[in-house]
Amino acid sequence: MAGGVGSRFWPMSTPEMPKQFIDVLGCGRSLIQLAYDRFQGICLPENFWVVTSARYVDLVKEQLPDLQDDHILREPCRRGTAPCIAYVSWKIKAKNPRANIVVTPSDHVVLDNREFFRVVKSAMKFTADSDAIVTLGMKATRPETGYGYIEADLSMACPSNKEIYRVDKFREKPDLATAKRYLQKKNYFWNAGIFVWNVSTIVNALRVYQPNIGDIFERMLPYFYTDKEQELIDESFPLCENISIDYAIMEKADEIYVFPASFGWSDLGTWGSLHEHMRKDVYDNLCLGPDIKVYETRNCVIHTLQEKKVIVQGLDGYLVAENQDSLLVCRLTEEQRIGDFTKED
Amino acid sequence: MAGGVGSRFWPMSTPEMPKQFIDVLGCGRSLIQLAYDRFQGICLPENFWVVTSARYVDLVKEQLPDLQDDHILREPCRRGTAPCIAYVSWKIKAKNPRANIVVTPSDHVVLDNREFFRVVKSAMKFTADSDAIVTLGMKATRPETGYGYIEADLSMACPSNKEIYRVDKFREKPDLATAKRYLQKKNYFWNAGIFVWNVSTIVNALRVYQPNIGDIFERMLPYFYTDKEQELIDESFPLCENISIDYAIMEKADEIYVFPASFGWSDLGTWGSLHEHMRKDVYDNLCLGPDIKVYETRNCVIHTLQEKKVIVQGLDGYLVAENQDSLLVCRLTEEQRIGDFTKED
Repeated sequence: MAGGVGSRFWPMSTPEMPKQFIDVLGCGRSLIQLAYDRFQGICLPENFWVVTSARYVDLVKEQLPDLQDDHILREPCRRGTAPCIAYVSWKIKAKNPRANIVVTPSDHVVLDNREFFRVVKSAMKFTADSDAIVTLGMKATRPETGYGYIEADLSMACPSNKEIYRVDKFREKPDLATAKRYLQKKNYFWNAGIFVWNVSTIVNALRVYQPNIGDIFERMLPYFYTDKEQELIDESFPLCENISIDYAIMEKADEIYVFPASFGWSDLGTWGSLHEHMRKDVYDNLCLGPDIKVYETRNCVIHTLQEKKVIVQGLDGYLVAENQDSLLVCRLTEEQRIGDFTKED
Repeated sequence: MAGGVGSRFWPMSTPEMPKQFIDVLGCGRSLIQLAYDRFQGICLPENFWVVTSARYVDLVKEQLPDLQDDHILREPCRRGTAPCIAYVSWKIKAKNPRANIVVTPSDHVVLDNREFFRVVKSAMKFTADSDAIVTLGMKATRPETGYGYIEADLSMACPSNKEIYRVDKFREKPDLATAKRYLQKKNYFWNAGIFVWNVSTIVNALRVYQPNIGDIFERMLPYFYTDKEQELIDESFPLCENISIDYAIMEKADEIYVFPASFGWSDLGTWGSLHEHMRKDVYDNLCLGPDIKVYETRNCVIHTLQEKKVIVQGLDGYLVAENQDSLLVCRLTEEQRIGDFTKED
């Protein structure tokens, strides 16, 4: 899934170049490239699919040159993750009804790729032989209010995979007090938006719980892989309800499973989460850029990958971010206002 | 005079592009262009001379296309203002022994060009008929410790120009207490480094007070305006003592005059002086850039002419400056450390 516009990460992320296409970590690979790399050994190049909006198709081609062109699906508009997943699932099923699928956002970060590999392989083994809907649940490390939570029933592991448990309930983003309670408990996990299932499972679930969406893609079946596909998708996709897969399926279906895991995941939803997640200097500064010098500066995020030289003196708790001739200096505590800052004119 | 390297104004000013060549004020003209413009009606285009270092010759040609190429004099190295003024004065005198000269830095700012015009015209009238060395003395508006001062004898104006007075003494940059005393008195003026004299006066003064420098350019006389000039200048100019015109002449000669004036002058020697000098918003922010938005921000200088969009939140008393892929964020009170910041590696 690579359709996000990443407005909270301005100016690094812009509608022209959202964060999945950016080398956020300063490592030489964009987030979507890192996501692609992460699946080496799990998925053959010919089995990758990217769903994105028309404006990003060229970026995807450029950044993932090994991807087949016809495996880049164009959403004519944004309709949330459920229609996105439905489109690619119906299409895969038309070709390979026994496909086993991992759905992942392309703009998240995973630090421990080895553990990611192990967890995903294990979950796929589980879904290859079952009709389970498996979500990866991240072990919480802080009372995060920006994520949804998965409440698991840890009383009994699945017989065929002792790391996988039944889900009791999906929980929406909590307030801080609630998040703190969740953190105390052992059976609440962050919903990372990474799902594992076989293609029949998800198509059946969508048919049952989102019959309107199911119908739309069912009617597309004769046209997939034909010249008429894009035209018909452009007509029918906008008719889908705008709904996330969490609302559409997870909160409705009964047989949902969670695989609690810990592989240094972050959705990089905010500058603060980047700060939290990355290696910092002794004064808790996260400096990403070719030549950044700091003096009397602490607890800052300085993200200036395009600046040849940056000097920061005397800041505490600030974000300094530069990208494509745009500059933001802002208290990290105020970063939820970034969207407003950029909108006002 | 356009040889300065402007290291205190990093990153706006760099050795490759010092501040005289930059549109510091964001008005569409660089400081040297503004200086050139300021002399329209005072000096014909064919009578402008620029002394600079070899590396800036192309910048001068580009920014002042009406200037004659052979009126750009190349210093092979920096030797202070006295050798610089000596070179151009000897050369002008070789062609026109009756020339009347205004010497001015090219990287200062003048806000009231009308008054500047009046003062310079009046001073030139004075020096056309006398052997006076005239300095323009700026009426102090604050206890500035970054400027030298001129102590005038206000008891008697010159008979031929009632605005011009004898100088009692040149005073070096004072400490703050002394600067405050100077500000109380009516007869202390800032030394702006703008001089008016006829060419014989300055050549004679240099011969008397700086005989070594005088000898060097005297020996150049047969070679000015020939193919050998640059080669010989490259050989002999470095032999000049590194000395400012203030030390070389002003503090030694007896017959020095000051023309007290007030035309919104600043040497723009520091970011703080830019802040002091320019029009600010109601929160005392000086914002120079195409699209700068500030929130909860006061007493700041934001100088980001090359950034398409800038947002600053929650800063008080800071400098935010971006230029040519370099970024500086620093307390204005710490700006004297900018030179150190950029040197360390």
